[in-house]
Amino acid sequence: MVTSREIRLKSRPVGEPVHDNFELATVEVAALDDGEIQVRNLWMSVDPYMRGRMTDRKSYVPPFELGKALQGGAIGEVTASNDPDFKPGDIVSTMFGWREVFNVSPKALAAGGMGAVTKIDTHGLPPQAFLGVAGMPGLTAYVGLLRIAALKDGDVVFVSAAAGAVGQVVCQIAKLKGHTVIGSAGGPEKVAFLKSIGVDHVIDYKATPDVVAELEKVAPKGIDVYFENVGGVHLEAALNSARPFARFALCGMISQYNETGKLTGPPNIIQAVGKSLRLEGFIVSNHYDLAPQFLKDMAGWIGADQIKWNETVEDGVERAPDAFIKLFKGENLGKMLVRLG
Amino acid sequence: MVTSREIRLKSRPVGEPVHDNFELATVEVAALDDGEIQVRNLWMSVDPYMRGRMTDRKSYVPPFELGKALQGGAIGEVTASNDPDFKPGDIVSTMFGWREVFNVSPKALAAGGMGAVTKIDTHGLPPQAFLGVAGMPGLTAYVGLLRIAALKDGDVVFVSAAAGAVGQVVCQIAKLKGHTVIGSAGGPEKVAFLKSIGVDHVIDYKATPDVVAELEKVAPKGIDVYFENVGGVHLEAALNSARPFARFALCGMISQYNETGKLTGPPNIIQAVGKSLRLEGFIVSNHYDLAPQFLKDMAGWIGADQIKWNETVEDGVERAPDAFIKLFKGENLGKMLVRLG
Repeated sequence: MVTSREIRLKSRPVGEPVHDNFELATVEVAALDDGEIQVRNLWMSVDPYMRGRMTDRKSYVPPFELGKALQGGAIGEVTASNDPDFKPGDIVSTMFGWREVFNVSPKALAAGGMGAVTKIDTHGLPPQAFLGVAGMPGLTAYVGLLRIAALKDGDVVFVSAAAGAVGQVVCQIAKLKGHTVIGSAGGPEKVAFLKSIGVDHVIDYKATPDVVAELEKVAPKGIDVYFENVGGVHLEAALNSARPFARFALCGMISQYNETGKLTGPPNIIQAVGKSLRLEGFIVSNHYDLAPQFLKDMAGWIGADQIKWNETVEDGVERAPDAFIKLFKGENLGKMLVRLG
Repeated sequence: MVTSREIRLKSRPVGEPVHDNFELATVEVAALDDGEIQVRNLWMSVDPYMRGRMTDRKSYVPPFELGKALQGGAIGEVTASNDPDFKPGDIVSTMFGWREVFNVSPKALAAGGMGAVTKIDTHGLPPQAFLGVAGMPGLTAYVGLLRIAALKDGDVVFVSAAAGAVGQVVCQIAKLKGHTVIGSAGGPEKVAFLKSIGVDHVIDYKATPDVVAELEKVAPKGIDVYFENVGGVHLEAALNSARPFARFALCGMISQYNETGKLTGPPNIIQAVGKSLRLEGFIVSNHYDLAPQFLKDMAGWIGADQIKWNETVEDGVERAPDAFIKLFKGENLGKMLVRLG
């Protein structure tokens, strides 16, 4: 009998998530049914957007259910198969993270419209790259920068959470396309990483008393594109430094996710009128039509050594809550991952 | 000797503009030079955007100069002409408001890139309509609704300052195109006007303790387009009620123009991410390419009795500061005008 350990949502976080919001459980994995495959996860992802699903409110995805295993991106290896399209040893990407082993019917899942089981040709990349630069965070960077912000020649690009899973890719795509890039991140390690990948100006927001003034200083002529991951004073700074017709890709606002009091909006939102700014939110799952082109471009960039990346790794499914909690403390450099295999 | 009375900016307003910020002066108008025409203004416009130009700060137009006559949209009659393209009796639109009589060289002005002198064929409309529904406010409504918000079939449209010069046109274009329209305005007279032009739901924000809850109530399925003239709680309400992929045309935020303390942004701006909202500011002068089509459409709509409008009129250039000050107290129904002729 195969068993699997999984992390369940025990209670909904109020403010920052804490260990007591999660519980570890062990389940027995049933014998394979017709059409099913069994997958042993090698890696799982924790992402800031998951915080939203832990709260019981209407959103673009339903909330996680209490007492059930959480969900999220994972890369695993097929260990048994009753589906002719999959064979043991195949590497697959699924949304069945937060657990070690599971059975799933790829065809039934696809028919239900849920996140599909996708066989991955790793092209020599480590499999966990498909949870990072070559996966959802990489595609998010690509979509936000190229489609939503409609990056064009000469644009000066500002990126918040620039050393995070998405931000690090945004910075490097903008750099390889010849742009001036300003990145904001917290702490000397992240600053050093961003400098090592060619970011022109790095703002250490934890060491900067006034992010608005600092952005004015490092971008004296202003910015044309803002890739928004943080919200709060970073959005205010971007509005303040925006040139006319600047475009903001609103990917996330991590500074707001755990706020329990009244949130505060950017006090200078009025500048969007006079400077004809465009602020546009997006969810990467609405832009999967760009995935094939993204994978082609990203493979080329990685091959040409134009994209580097950082990972922060925790080991074991029991450490997944730690990994998730650390995201909101800014303790990850690059993609935060949990190794399960 | 022809004389002209004009209104000058005496001091820059701090907060709401007051009478003491303005002064009336009388000047002698010189004899006509080569290429010049003399214009006697019939009507002048006061518009909320002028408040921004009274403050000394960088913006999309330079600030007004102290001690000099203000500027703004005006409709006048040519009384003498040294330019073969203009003859006495011609009706012209210029940016030389806030004065009674002036000389100008249309060709020199056009060469300088300043607001041109435009001869108007009134097509039987009263000339002041070219400061309102058939002029800049009308074009602003048209551009914001059709280009910026990209109105499409089935959209539910929310309009703030719906009984103002721009808002009343937004409501009626949306209605004649078959949309459900929700308008917000202050006071029973404006509410009655909006109902008379077919607005489906009117929110009297002055009589409503909670605009956010009220919009939820009258638009239970949400809104797809928000035409933003006000800012503050109206923007918060629109974000709260926005459906996925809603588009916001940010035209102005009159609630913020006189604020002297710290401005406040919409506390729920984070909803722009999860709902993939697009918020886009615009300045009508960047969209004059749509003016010919606008004039053609508007002439047809007015001819078919599909567009009605209200005006609030003050008489005499000496009343122009009153007219302007009343804008910020919401005392205008429809377009606020000053009759000079």
